[in-house]
Amino acid sequence: MLKGILSVLLVLVTLSSAIGKPEKTTPKKEKRIPQTLSRGWGDQLIWAQTYEEALFWSRSKNKPLMVIFHLEDCPHSQSLKKAFAEDKEIQKLADDEFVILNLVYETTDKHLSPDGQYVPRILFVDPSMTVRADITGRYSNRLYAYEPADMKLLLSNMQRALKFLKTEL
Amino acid sequence: MLKGILSVLLVLVTLSSAIGKPEKTTPKKEKRIPQTLSRGWGDQLIWAQTYEEALFWSRSKNKPLMVIFHLEDCPHSQSLKKAFAEDKEIQKLADDEFVILNLVYETTDKHLSPDGQYVPRILFVDPSMTVRADITGRYSNRLYAYEPADMKLLLSNMQRALKFLKTEL
Repeated sequence: MLKGILSVLLVLVTLSSAIGKPEKTTPKKEKRIPQTLSRGWGDQLIWAQTYEEALFWSRSKNKPLMVIFHLEDCPHSQSLKKAFAEDKEIQKLADDEFVILNLVYETTDKHLSPDGQYVPRILFVDPSMTVRADITGRYSNRLYAYEPADMKLLLSNMQRALKFLKTEL
Repeated sequence: MLKGILSVLLVLVTLSSAIGKPEKTTPKKEKRIPQTLSRGWGDQLIWAQTYEEALFWSRSKNKPLMVIFHLEDCPHSQSLKKAFAEDKEIQKLADDEFVILNLVYETTDKHLSPDGQYVPRILFVDPSMTVRADITGRYSNRLYAYEPADMKLLLSNMQRALKFLKTEL
């Protein structure tokens, strides 16, 4: 996991240093592929664009919100994304019962980073707009991190987010 | 213009009433087209996803930010989108010199709605994170609204946002 954190830091440093350079890596004349909201986390799912939009839909539909923080260039994010996108049970449950949002930039809401800003991390928010800081993964030093091997835990955490919804509200 | 406002209100009312109904208008088995960040405002441009991301890029690249508020089902938004996407000069200037963001949900930043929340409206923000409330369209009752016939004014407002940037900073 420490290795993971170091990689993430490295990615952040690379990202920051890349910002200083002249942009436009895509040559002008070449046709760009339009960016998608899914960013590869499930092209068949309906993604919210912003946290505000996601909260609005969560309240309107009375569905829990799942927020995935990731970085496009981070190998840990990439491998989690692959596992997430390929897991049919997770995709179906996300599609049926959740409002979903994936972000490559942090929001201003500090409740979404209970133990710091790192990627990848997954937070659940219930329709009353309470961040479910109690739904955690298996790493004590990064409570909301998941690895590709943790898909069963993630699925059971999704079910927990739904169960609390029914018993608590 | 009053007609425009009424239509927008009607769209908002329709949207709100639609929320109460069971969702999923797309049949489950049909393949969905992945949502794009451009939403038709220029598939070849690079769009920010969130306001936070847009502000970050605006500061990092020292480029003004253009924020377009719109609604997918609003006919005024649709016709402005068509004019915007087809205007080569605007598309090129947006691509070269601006950070761009289109939103269908309001942000929590009240500076982005100096005279209210309506669609379509276009706001400029400079890299010092100041909303350029002085850059307005031609309608006194909706200062930041544009119609398809206003593309020349929009282009000149974009140039103004760039000019102030050079002389003021």
